[in-house]
Amino acid sequence: MTASILGPGAPALAFDVGGTDMKAALVDAEGTVLGTRRLPTPRDGERTADRVVEAVARLAEEFAAEYPSVAPAAAGLLVPGHVDAAAGVGVLSENLGWREYPFRERATAALGMPVGFDHDVRAAGEAEYLLGAASRYRDVLVVTIGTGIAAAVFIDGRIHAGDGRVGEIGHAPVADGPACACGGRGCLEAVASAAAIARRYAAGTGQPVRGAREVLARAQTGDGVALAVWESALDALALSFAHVVALLSPEALVIGGGLSEAGEELLEPLRRRLDARLTFHRRPVLVKARIGEDAGIIGAALKARAVAPIREQAGTR
Amino acid sequence: MTASILGPGAPALAFDVGGTDMKAALVDAEGTVLGTRRLPTPRDGERTADRVVEAVARLAEEFAAEYPSVAPAAAGLLVPGHVDAAAGVGVLSENLGWREYPFRERATAALGMPVGFDHDVRAAGEAEYLLGAASRYRDVLVVTIGTGIAAAVFIDGRIHAGDGRVGEIGHAPVADGPACACGGRGCLEAVASAAAIARRYAAGTGQPVRGAREVLARAQTGDGVALAVWESALDALALSFAHVVALLSPEALVIGGGLSEAGEELLEPLRRRLDARLTFHRRPVLVKARIGEDAGIIGAALKARAVAPIREQAGTR
Repeated sequence: MTASILGPGAPALAFDVGGTDMKAALVDAEGTVLGTRRLPTPRDGERTADRVVEAVARLAEEFAAEYPSVAPAAAGLLVPGHVDAAAGVGVLSENLGWREYPFRERATAALGMPVGFDHDVRAAGEAEYLLGAASRYRDVLVVTIGTGIAAAVFIDGRIHAGDGRVGEIGHAPVADGPACACGGRGCLEAVASAAAIARRYAAGTGQPVRGAREVLARAQTGDGVALAVWESALDALALSFAHVVALLSPEALVIGGGLSEAGEELLEPLRRRLDARLTFHRRPVLVKARIGEDAGIIGAALKARAVAPIREQAGTR
Repeated sequence: MTASILGPGAPALAFDVGGTDMKAALVDAEGTVLGTRRLPTPRDGERTADRVVEAVARLAEEFAAEYPSVAPAAAGLLVPGHVDAAAGVGVLSENLGWREYPFRERATAALGMPVGFDHDVRAAGEAEYLLGAASRYRDVLVVTIGTGIAAAVFIDGRIHAGDGRVGEIGHAPVADGPACACGGRGCLEAVASAAAIARRYAAGTGQPVRGAREVLARAQTGDGVALAVWESALDALALSFAHVVALLSPEALVIGGGLSEAGEELLEPLRRRLDARLTFHRRPVLVKARIGEDAGIIGAALKARAVAPIREQAGTR
């Protein structure tokens, strides 16, 4: 149970499907987050999206059994990749392998309630923008660094979704390699995502690690390969951010996702490297996301509340 | 005399100050551009901005003598660098050496009429957006490649100026060198602007050239240095555009400025290189600016008309 960031509103189910794990929770009428759970995102080749919807329905049943007094009025469902939120469609996920999957329609049928559907990084970014570390800025990016790297882009106080592929900074070239899941080479995400940092260390040493945090810990104890991997990730992030700053001159970059859990151990060297790359540019404030790990769930709950029947939205039933 | 793109409106003076040359013209009530002239931007160290305003006043007198029947109701003045259009101030130009210069106030005093003041690349971009090649798009960049490289950024149908430093893609790192006027190294502008292409060729051969067009011509006749300079400029532009596409997924990139005069000889290889860098991304339409060389003058005239007294705006006097 998480203290309420959301405040009162319609009770809702919240689902945040990531490239590795999916998270689910129930939000009550006070905005309290109940029963948060994390499970591996089901994978079944071309049927992965069907399995995700089945998992969503199963989780809804579990919440109903566990919290019989909380009757959700709507659900929020977030997925990664190229998302057409208006159409309710997952257009493409390279990591999870679906194309043109009608998530909103299928989830609405499976759950028997209205479903707010959106892109995981944009909805998490909206949570940080409305309720978290980005709330004091109008020109700001909320950058999620986890399995992949992508940003929610706020321009003059509004999120910019464009054609659904805005903010894909993880898929811009920062190096000559390694190969990226998208088919490109040297994408930021292939060098500097939390998953890439772990993968590159394992490839360089033959030793699997649990994640990027472990690579950072090894770098701090003098492991040369770990240090090289970590520093090249910082360099790649700073290079990418320099392009972002030159193009958009944002007030702030709010960093979320798994890698942001490293806090100042990530942000301090990143600020230094970015500063060295800039001249007349505005230095954006570089801060850690406040809602952090739960931003997806909070974002999903906000999407759910936005589609809940009006009479539920006051949070009284 | 140019055929009217502008259409009827207040008669106006138009001044477009660039890093190398400045252009001036008079626009009559039908929108016809009269007496366009180009002269070297005056340079006088810390007094350069004063000299620019003096040149503007002198040109206004010349137009008054040459076209006594056209009485301008306002003037438009565009300058490069970091511009605060709302305050009327040229905040900083590395190339021309001014800081915090109150252009609007000084030009208003020198000309005795209202002055619309803005950033050269943004105002030229607005001309292309309202009247030129960008007019069919809502998410589009108008990229000017001349002495420097910068873009006017349109998001969902509105220009995004931010803090006045939005669109400075010329000052993002694409290589390890050469040194850039901004104090950085390997900025796009130091590698791929029209001026940089000429400069790099001259540095590589000891032979001065008139401009980037001559480098392209030499590359086409088998000059190895010219070819290397030209191709590295194309590579740098494609790399920069790949970052732009990943972050903003624009519908189109409209290319203006001196280098765009090369037309398909520039655009065709650029499309090919950009395409090779992209995977799932939307391929932006890559087209030449339509108003082209006159976009600054047209943009300045639009800025002038926006501040002309209402009774003049119909174009009747």
